[in-house]
Amino acid sequence: MAIRLGEQTVKIDEPVSIISTASVVGPKEGEGPLRRYYDVILGDILHGCDSWEKAESKIVETSFKRAIEKASLTPKDIDIIIAGDLLNQSIGSTFGVMNLNRPFWGIFAACANMGAGLAMGAIAIDSGAAFRVAVGASSHFCSAEKQFRTPLEHGNQRTPTSSWTVTGSGCAVLSCSDEGPFITHSTIGKIVDMGITDANNMGAAMAPSAADTIVAHFNDTKRDPSYYDSIITGDLGHIGSQLAAELMADKGYKLGNNYTDCGIKIFDKAKQDTHAGGSGCGCSAVTLAGYLYNGLKEKTINKILFVPTGALLSPTSVQQGQNIPGIAHAVAIENSR
Amino acid sequence: MAIRLGEQTVKIDEPVSIISTASVVGPKEGEGPLRRYYDVILGDILHGCDSWEKAESKIVETSFKRAIEKASLTPKDIDIIIAGDLLNQSIGSTFGVMNLNRPFWGIFAACANMGAGLAMGAIAIDSGAAFRVAVGASSHFCSAEKQFRTPLEHGNQRTPTSSWTVTGSGCAVLSCSDEGPFITHSTIGKIVDMGITDANNMGAAMAPSAADTIVAHFNDTKRDPSYYDSIITGDLGHIGSQLAAELMADKGYKLGNNYTDCGIKIFDKAKQDTHAGGSGCGCSAVTLAGYLYNGLKEKTINKILFVPTGALLSPTSVQQGQNIPGIAHAVAIENSR
Repeated sequence: MAIRLGEQTVKIDEPVSIISTASVVGPKEGEGPLRRYYDVILGDILHGCDSWEKAESKIVETSFKRAIEKASLTPKDIDIIIAGDLLNQSIGSTFGVMNLNRPFWGIFAACANMGAGLAMGAIAIDSGAAFRVAVGASSHFCSAEKQFRTPLEHGNQRTPTSSWTVTGSGCAVLSCSDEGPFITHSTIGKIVDMGITDANNMGAAMAPSAADTIVAHFNDTKRDPSYYDSIITGDLGHIGSQLAAELMADKGYKLGNNYTDCGIKIFDKAKQDTHAGGSGCGCSAVTLAGYLYNGLKEKTINKILFVPTGALLSPTSVQQGQNIPGIAHAVAIENSR
Repeated sequence: MAIRLGEQTVKIDEPVSIISTASVVGPKEGEGPLRRYYDVILGDILHGCDSWEKAESKIVETSFKRAIEKASLTPKDIDIIIAGDLLNQSIGSTFGVMNLNRPFWGIFAACANMGAGLAMGAIAIDSGAAFRVAVGASSHFCSAEKQFRTPLEHGNQRTPTSSWTVTGSGCAVLSCSDEGPFITHSTIGKIVDMGITDANNMGAAMAPSAADTIVAHFNDTKRDPSYYDSIITGDLGHIGSQLAAELMADKGYKLGNNYTDCGIKIFDKAKQDTHAGGSGCGCSAVTLAGYLYNGLKEKTINKILFVPTGALLSPTSVQQGQNIPGIAHAVAIENSR
């Protein structure tokens, strides 16, 4: 049975473990500082397809198949697949998981998809509704630029606050196991709107929701920032993560050196020109599936608070003058229970 | 604890009840055969807003507030909100539930959203992760036409197989209770692709997935079609529902007079010109929240299999020549457990 803690947090009481992960990334990510942790680094950003959207779906499929294979399972062993992406009507996920032919829940939490999906998957296993769940999230630089910003062919300048959408898909297979790392808690985010309207500053749009969810997590669990070896937000990047830390400090929680962001870790600030850092659902998903999962398995880190962050906008909502609210879903992943 | 039955079905073991519902619909739906079951019938399809998208969000908000109020609760009593819609990046849901300020899971199963959401909500309550969950789904005729088809101002002819997107939002509040109706089972759908490419024949695109999920439900639960007082698909309409019945018969399950479709019930075929019938996430959501819930509470029907159906396409996937796969999520709702 799961146990409700405080207003937003669920304690997972069964030993729900991440039994395997896989990450598939594009060429630029493959040149980044986390390259040795990825399963597949594509030489071709189209992954052999004739469109960016089809490429994203194929990347999703490759990551799910690899994660399932690494767990010595076949798709038939998976009871529920949970996936989400940024494309209109989630076609990255639909056409990515379709051929696996398993019961499927599509989700939309923008770039917080991996956090929402891990929570739903852990709760489903905890309840007995599933024995094994595969959770994934994806994004593609070219399909995202085309859909949310300007055509790549336009070659426009990027603002200093803009981030770089990660091309990649990360997948995690969850199951009950005696061996960790375990998903121990999920803090389900609220939508937070602080009046940001600049679609080129996603970090600022998402930072308040990250701070809100992390504070809720500490309040609900009675833990404090020093409990974790790593507190890592999804894709706030260099600007947003600093804002989040300031907002946290205002609320009485000082984040130390154990706080960072997947959007900071994934690209080399000096050598790879990504301005504010990495973003997109794939950013946190491949960082968890690669770098973080590796650290947990090798026990160089044993307790992490993984907090994917999403900006809840569409080009239409921005054009109609709506603010850009954010949402963040926190998941505690620990080697001990 | 939930119990896994067969390949796709979850038996909800705790008494997870639908303790209240609310439905908010547009003027056309308010003239339809189910009008006496709706909570709010709008005189103005813009609901006082300056865009169709904002109107959809306000309809969502109105339906959630009303359902929560009808349960004699306030938003603070809701542990998780689950919502989905058809708009790009789910802005109907985001801006619809934002002001309720509760932990939020966004979902995307196209017009099968209400089925996926009820399943997730029931599992969350069954597991102990939440005491009360509010689940909703919405669509809006004008925002959907604008996004998926041609601008309304174009005034183009509609094909005979096209359906009419329902303007409306339905919400259900779930909680443990001794009083039904109870969510007793959920059969989680697989994505089914039968090669349909005609975006003006959604019924045909979704019928195979409906048949697939209903057959899985019967196989997993060892029930047969006669068990239910009503088996009702989401928005297959007049053409798709006939196809689904034929596909079911091919698989050995003859659906009788107890089979119908929300897209058939919601509009008057003779007096309201909707061609193939009603569609959209709102179609099944408001039919459940209004007509079906009323029947269950008044015990004129006691066992229903509610099967929302979704077509997993985007304008981009269609333009790139991809097929239109479907997904259907079945939920058994019964007055006895």
